[in-house]
Amino acid sequence: MPEQTTGSRPTLEAVAARAGVSRATASRVVNGGAGVRAPLVEKVRRAVEELGYVPNHAARTLVTRRNGAVAVVIAEPEFRIFSDPFFEQQVRGISRELTAHDTQLVLLWVEGPGDHDRIARYLGGGHVDGALAFSLHGDDALADLIGRARVPLVLGGRPAPGTDPAVPFVDCDNRGGAREAVRHLVATGRRTVAHISGPADQTSALDRLHGYRDVLIDADPELLARGDFTEESGARAMAGLLDRRPDLDGVFVASDLMALGALRTLRERGLRVPEDVAVVGFDDMASVVGRADPALTTVRQDIEGMGRLMVRLLMRLLDGAGAGAPESVITPTSLVLRGSA
Amino acid sequence: MPEQTTGSRPTLEAVAARAGVSRATASRVVNGGAGVRAPLVEKVRRAVEELGYVPNHAARTLVTRRNGAVAVVIAEPEFRIFSDPFFEQQVRGISRELTAHDTQLVLLWVEGPGDHDRIARYLGGGHVDGALAFSLHGDDALADLIGRARVPLVLGGRPAPGTDPAVPFVDCDNRGGAREAVRHLVATGRRTVAHISGPADQTSALDRLHGYRDVLIDADPELLARGDFTEESGARAMAGLLDRRPDLDGVFVASDLMALGALRTLRERGLRVPEDVAVVGFDDMASVVGRADPALTTVRQDIEGMGRLMVRLLMRLLDGAGAGAPESVITPTSLVLRGSA
Repeated sequence: MPEQTTGSRPTLEAVAARAGVSRATASRVVNGGAGVRAPLVEKVRRAVEELGYVPNHAARTLVTRRNGAVAVVIAEPEFRIFSDPFFEQQVRGISRELTAHDTQLVLLWVEGPGDHDRIARYLGGGHVDGALAFSLHGDDALADLIGRARVPLVLGGRPAPGTDPAVPFVDCDNRGGAREAVRHLVATGRRTVAHISGPADQTSALDRLHGYRDVLIDADPELLARGDFTEESGARAMAGLLDRRPDLDGVFVASDLMALGALRTLRERGLRVPEDVAVVGFDDMASVVGRADPALTTVRQDIEGMGRLMVRLLMRLLDGAGAGAPESVITPTSLVLRGSA
Repeated sequence: MPEQTTGSRPTLEAVAARAGVSRATASRVVNGGAGVRAPLVEKVRRAVEELGYVPNHAARTLVTRRNGAVAVVIAEPEFRIFSDPFFEQQVRGISRELTAHDTQLVLLWVEGPGDHDRIARYLGGGHVDGALAFSLHGDDALADLIGRARVPLVLGGRPAPGTDPAVPFVDCDNRGGAREAVRHLVATGRRTVAHISGPADQTSALDRLHGYRDVLIDADPELLARGDFTEESGARAMAGLLDRRPDLDGVFVASDLMALGALRTLRERGLRVPEDVAVVGFDDMASVVGRADPALTTVRQDIEGMGRLMVRLLMRLLDGAGAGAPESVITPTSLVLRGSA
């Protein structure tokens, strides 16, 4: 009776005895039931239920064929996750949708490449049914690692070229939204429109930069500055732009948080918004936009909705064994006009 | 060959064949090895390794006896976690210490009691080696649920009476810190000292309230107001206090975030700090204290250090099978004098 030593939990032997089957058969059923005749599977499942052989990995898999948990992997260090409301909104959408599917969300993040192996080990260890990963960077080996862990995966944001094209993703129309923002600045009479972009290794930042260039094909490279999606980097980028091109009269900023920083720099330089410089952001996150003075004109993306969509794609992936991966989704954006442009 | 249907992964049958043992023996070893003679355990383990029977829950447990993952359970809804820097700091300490132990942190939180069963199921499912839980509320069944999931547990914050006393916890000296804060207000000549406390169902809030009462035994109940540790609630509580007792000249606020709100209300009412009303907070969190005007005198607790300590206690619990639970730890606090009192 070796398994009696694990304490007062019902053992597999007890399940087998109650079901009137051999231990090997009970074990087979607990491990998936393949090759066992349906009436025996039924008997074992009933015994499992009656004995409460449940708070146990194998038995749960038996009942639901699932762990009932999904990992959310954010490829950013913890201080970014807690300081950028983008992540809160995305996680909120994911959390609500997973709860609706009675599935536990477990959140993981990445302080650096040194964490990759450990994360892949956890994901490949059979503890979750699938993973949602976002904020991947271009050189990020994480998507590949998750793929090798053989866990169903949906990405937030268009992956960098080179990522397995079979992995579905959810993104917003970054390029189209950026085009609309820049067109608005041009249409309202701005002649020298600058752009503060995000990190060069993130597709969302690159797509917004491409949208800017779609409209201003001949823009002077001096009108481009790069931030890292934080407020501070927006303030610094704006200062650099003003030093190089004091004649600029409009700026499209690739995130609301960076736009807050840009507004601060403009204020410090004694420039009026929108009279001297018109500003358009990207995201339309209430908690950020609420701090902007004047009110921020920005490109809205439905961040929470994108989180929900990621869960739905993953659930389709989990349900539709053999049906092929679901299609990726690009959600629309819209320009929200307020005081700053 | 039922298990051959699971794909190209090596099967338990293959492990048994290679080790030259029966499938039942191989299974027993994979499930812990109890009751199996040591040479056979060794043979099976070698077969597991040689065949790479690894990216699999049971086999990993076999090799390391651990999942290499620890759950952090925060008994607060997601919007609180992302808006209160207390959680960020605690999680940061935990994350660094777990990384030092090559252990994966998985973060879970609780939107409401409806989540309890699902969380307990996950924790009891053999996916993590232990759990750290914090911000539990008095009527919170979560600690019991985690206990019943039989997963080693360390609590952040002194648990409410009724919680299993064998569960170790890490807390700071809330009561002593509060006493020091109130004594400072009294010693600097304040005669009418109010207190804004936290939620009545959290021991940290109660202990700070008791510290206030230790010094001001006969304090008028009108000098007490309650918040919920958010900035807004601090602003509201301060307004209520000023309406009832416009003569108050000092206030001890049970958290920095609530103190920010209190400072705002005092400013709006045209009262000078500290000339008219002296204010002392609790926490000394840089990101909050940095926003205070004037600079906030507050009680410092080492939040990140407490997170690290929780991990160390849990690791001792995991290592020292049978050695009894480690002792709970109360860390010291200190009063940090700045401009507000």
